[in-house]
Amino acid sequence: MGSDSDMPILRPCFEILDKFKIPYQARITSAHRTPDWMRTFAKDAKQNGFRVIIAAAGGAAHLPGMAASWTVLPVIGVPVKASVLDGVDSLYSMSQMPRGEPVATVGINNSTNAALLAARILGVADARVATLLREYAERSEAEVRAKDASLLRMGPLAYLKQMGR
Amino acid sequence: MGSDSDMPILRPCFEILDKFKIPYQARITSAHRTPDWMRTFAKDAKQNGFRVIIAAAGGAAHLPGMAASWTVLPVIGVPVKASVLDGVDSLYSMSQMPRGEPVATVGINNSTNAALLAARILGVADARVATLLREYAERSEAEVRAKDASLLRMGPLAYLKQMGR
Amino acid sequence: MGSDSDMPILRPCFEILDKFKIPYQARITSAHRTPDWMRTFAKDAKQNGFRVIIAAAGGAAHLPGMAASWTVLPVIGVPVKASVLDGVDSLYSMSQMPRGEPVATVGINNSTNAALLAARILGVADARVATLLREYAERSEAEVRAKDASLLRMGPLAYLKQMGR
Amino acid sequence: MGSDSDMPILRPCFEILDKFKIPYQARITSAHRTPDWMRTFAKDAKQNGFRVIIAAAGGAAHLPGMAASWTVLPVIGVPVKASVLDGVDSLYSMSQMPRGEPVATVGINNSTNAALLAARILGVADARVATLLREYAERSEAEVRAKDASLLRMGPLAYLKQMGR
Amino acid sequence: MGSDSDMPILRPCFEILDKFKIPYQARITSAHRTPDWMRTFAKDAKQNGFRVIIAAAGGAAHLPGMAASWTVLPVIGVPVKASVLDGVDSLYSMSQMPRGEPVATVGINNSTNAALLAARILGVADARVATLLREYAERSEAEVRAKDASLLRMGPLAYLKQMGR
Amino acid sequence: MGSDSDMPILRPCFEILDKFKIPYQARITSAHRTPDWMRTFAKDAKQNGFRVIIAAAGGAAHLPGMAASWTVLPVIGVPVKASVLDGVDSLYSMSQMPRGEPVATVGINNSTNAALLAARILGVADARVATLLREYAERSEAEVRAKDASLLRMGPLAYLKQMGR
Amino acid sequence: MGSDSDMPILRPCFEILDKFKIPYQARITSAHRTPDWMRTFAKDAKQNGFRVIIAAAGGAAHLPGMAASWTVLPVIGVPVKASVLDGVDSLYSMSQMPRGEPVATVGINNSTNAALLAARILGVADARVATLLREYAERSEAEVRAKDASLLRMGPLAYLKQMGR
Amino acid sequence: MGSDSDMPILRPCFEILDKFKIPYQARITSAHRTPDWMRTFAKDAKQNGFRVIIAAAGGAAHLPGMAASWTVLPVIGVPVKASVLDGVDSLYSMSQMPRGEPVATVGINNSTNAALLAARILGVADARVATLLREYAERSEAEVRAKDASLLRMGPLAYLKQMGR
Repeated sequence: MGSDSDMPILRPCFEILDKFKIPYQARITSAHRTPDWMRTFAKDAKQNGFRVIIAAAGGAAHLPGMAASWTVLPVIGVPVKASVLDGVDSLYSMSQMPRGEPVATVGINNSTNAALLAARILGVADARVATLLREYAERSEAEVRAKDASLLRMGPLAYLKQMGR
Repeated sequence: MGSDSDMPILRPCFEILDKFKIPYQARITSAHRTPDWMRTFAKDAKQNGFRVIIAAAGGAAHLPGMAASWTVLPVIGVPVKASVLDGVDSLYSMSQMPRGEPVATVGINNSTNAALLAARILGVADARVATLLREYAERSEAEVRAKDASLLRMGPLAYLKQMGR
Repeated sequence: MGSDSDMPILRPCFEILDKFKIPYQARITSAHRTPDWMRTFAKDAKQNGFRVIIAAAGGAAHLPGMAASWTVLPVIGVPVKASVLDGVDSLYSMSQMPRGEPVATVGINNSTNAALLAARILGVADARVATLLREYAERSEAEVRAKDASLLRMGPLAYLKQMGR
Repeated sequence: MGSDSDMPILRPCFEILDKFKIPYQARITSAHRTPDWMRTFAKDAKQNGFRVIIAAAGGAAHLPGMAASWTVLPVIGVPVKASVLDGVDSLYSMSQMPRGEPVATVGINNSTNAALLAARILGVADARVATLLREYAERSEAEVRAKDASLLRMGPLAYLKQMGR
Repeated sequence: MGSDSDMPILRPCFEILDKFKIPYQARITSAHRTPDWMRTFAKDAKQNGFRVIIAAAGGAAHLPGMAASWTVLPVIGVPVKASVLDGVDSLYSMSQMPRGEPVATVGINNSTNAALLAARILGVADARVATLLREYAERSEAEVRAKDASLLRMGPLAYLKQMGR
Repeated sequence: MGSDSDMPILRPCFEILDKFKIPYQARITSAHRTPDWMRTFAKDAKQNGFRVIIAAAGGAAHLPGMAASWTVLPVIGVPVKASVLDGVDSLYSMSQMPRGEPVATVGINNSTNAALLAARILGVADARVATLLREYAERSEAEVRAKDASLLRMGPLAYLKQMGR
Repeated sequence: MGSDSDMPILRPCFEILDKFKIPYQARITSAHRTPDWMRTFAKDAKQNGFRVIIAAAGGAAHLPGMAASWTVLPVIGVPVKASVLDGVDSLYSMSQMPRGEPVATVGINNSTNAALLAARILGVADARVATLLREYAERSEAEVRAKDASLLRMGPLAYLKQMGR
Repeated sequence: MGSDSDMPILRPCFEILDKFKIPYQARITSAHRTPDWMRTFAKDAKQNGFRVIIAAAGGAAHLPGMAASWTVLPVIGVPVKASVLDGVDSLYSMSQMPRGEPVATVGINNSTNAALLAARILGVADARVATLLREYAERSEAEVRAKDASLLRMGPLAYLKQMGR
């Protein structure tokens, strides 16, 4: 990530990677404040054993795009909402990369999806991860079905009350 | 893709996949006009040997998101500019997926980057593709350097004239 | 709705349907987390006796559009404001459906209007509902007229004071 | 519609209504240039036998919202792209109606979906129309499947050539 | 105004009209909930002695545009920020009126400017109001000059401290 | 206007002022290229006999706001669409004036409405202009009614054909 | 700045100028409320010894653009977020100046960058300032590297805990 | 610039620099295709005698921001309109740089203002350039005054005719 102020946004990402037992390193490297360090990190990432880079940044959000310029690894960009513009600046800065250097952009602040996309990428060649993804989807489906059953049983007003709303 | 009207946008994608000798199938399956066929395609994609799905769509652009709901393969979304809204509707519809089902969104109309992102994903486990990506980047760098050298030699006004502008 | 977090937004919808004595079922079915259940629900809705579907969702908001693809019932979409983008992503994702599969989109978070639109649709063939709509409009008109009369009598500054502002 | 300059946008709407043998009247009534005539039209529409109103307008686009204020019929709004703002002004002006008076908004310039939504509304109580909608969807599905089969057989580059691109 | 929830936004408007001793009536008349009353009000406004109409509304904000359709008085529109879209929907709905029916749109929530614009309009033919406007501008200028002098004397950090920031 | 490139946009304005026999002067004065001349013009406008100022500008569009700062006359702003941003920059720059200095903003490129708003302002104290406005509205209403009658008689497809569409 | 309400936004600017020992004057001069004083200030700025002008303003934000019209000094514009539109109005109003009068626009509310840009401009001819900028960048780089080292040592969850999140 | 496709946009910039006899080098260096060459260029720019960098780029437009990270020279960013989004992506990507690394952003496609801003920056310490800027402004003012005089003499309709409109 470009700054440690992005850490809370990335917590769900860390938790999913932990749950999937996908080893990872969380690093801070700003495209603007540490451009040489960012370059070295990206250039050496593949030979250092990294297989995917997840880069979160707000505002002008050059981090994932610049990382993508120095590596052939897939780079996932997480646009982070800053105090103005609701993350649209970051979303554009990541998705609208020029022809030649793609960033795999996920939703604003959505580091959950960054982790799951990384898992899907690893799952292409790693059956263990693919199986975990399938189980994750099944659990998620079951949770929604259970809530739906409760709602059907209770009716909407009782359900809202139970939610404390 | 969701409609054959998206075919011209995807031409650069086909060309890169051909150049990288990555086998692929171009299919038309609309999330709205053929929802069952889309579902079958996505559900069976992994066992049918697909490793990555590239889904292009305009407007509400539900195709990549729905595909992602029925597979654990990585799904790359290409927002397509329709006659209004400049592709922002599609960009939002792909990137802003709920937590749980990621779409790897690239730039509006940028199928070149979709192909290169697919190559990067395959390159994680396939050294041949990773090497091709590195060569692609080097060729691209050399082209820019050559143009820069011409420009430096000719000066901007002569360069513009040569461009016919 | 796509998630029970949308329940509070839908409360006014439930209340109007109750007031109009229009029977309804509140269900949770996510286009992404329970795509098969959503499909089954939509495919069978008409023969299960449903006459209108109201679908609320935030972000990429594929629920109403996908429901519309599996049924010929009218589908009303309620865009829900998520933590970023003010609901514009959902508004676009519902209204900008491709030619062929319409979603009747109402205002962001405006589940009141979804309920009233459902009532108008039922009122086409059901004189009881049409009458209730007319009475609703008359009550609403009378309330505004009464407030206007108070304001005229009190003057704006006293009126503001009485409002506690 | 609010002006005869919207006529070409509405052509697909007329064609679908004709194909579905749904009787209709095309009328021009501007919310701003003929406010009294618009009011009379909307107030009397139900007793004149109309069951649904489709209102197309660009810019500030008050027509559908005002019609909805004078009738309990369902009103479908078609935002029309004007020379600036890409129809966003009209989309907002229709969808963001206050609580109490819904407009069923479809996509910008998408009069096809307005006609189909009207058919879905009529189909709630009219089995003939519901059947036609089902057939329409099946034909649409078959067309996409046929194109997909051609594409699979020909490959993308030959298909593009055949499209003349 | 379209609803008494807009009253607090209009307080500065009332205060300026009071200060300028411009007689006015504050009325509530919703374009959607009381369309006939709104029409009557607008149609009769000129003969009832009104010279300018200030109309505040949020969301689809049809009030000023519809008022302008039933009167030849100048109509000033105040877009009101609602819970979503930051007032852009109202700003568009007022400014983007079709050729023929102008609304004099001021800034979002800026009822101060609505009152001052009304005063400028009346000041065209009323020297007393024009003089008050000139004095208002001079007082405003003097206030800024005084603050600037304080700031210059105190320096920015002391000035910030005095502001309690 | 700020530049003679805005002249074509203002043509409808000139034509309406001519038709209403409202005397006017068309002047070019750029807020940025001739700031002193603009200031002199605005400061002296009232004593030079001007009663309303119509200011058209594109991009940053400071002209109407600055004019409003040097006069107490009502200033009407016409946002002009430039080569990018569709006039939204100008619309914001005119409408979002700070509390104290209003600009009466009309629609983007809509100089027709600027002229009619000027007429409404003059019509407050000038019965001749008010009468012309009423006649203008009546003619406009009659034109729409005539088109509606043709459409009803011909049907939409014949009407479209007659339009050459 | 245009109003003393912008003072808190400018605090980081003052602090950097102090730290760099760049002498400056903080002044309040509104383009709209004190147009003559603003003009005098801008016209005389160069001969009064100013070398760069930093102008902060919200909403229509005409201050930097008008200052640029009366001086040949470089003018840096700081768009200030007002209560609506997230500063986009100000950003457009500053950046979209017509050809001929540039404003050097920095990010919304980002007065830090305004001060640093002023330092870069002065550093073109002042080696002392250029050296301070280099040291500032090195300190900034060292801070990020230190945080990164902590994060690597602690791991993300412990780091988050230490942040109190 | 990031690509030679930006050359035509930069022509006015070249022409002004030529007219002002400010020596310059036009170079092509892409942040993404030649990241190392861009880094070398920016790192060495100051010691190679450059005093200001003007960087034009479209889409994600990382060039000026990355250049600013490797130099203490002032960097002027010219957002370039690409085939979608009207340059807003580039405008955001340049202006919304994080605190610490400013880019002096000018208007979309407005390379004229980039050249003039560079001249203003050089003019801080170079009286010759400052004088040329003053003469440029005076010529510009005279041109507008001359057009205004023609318009006043001819009247608007004759003027329009002479313009061929």
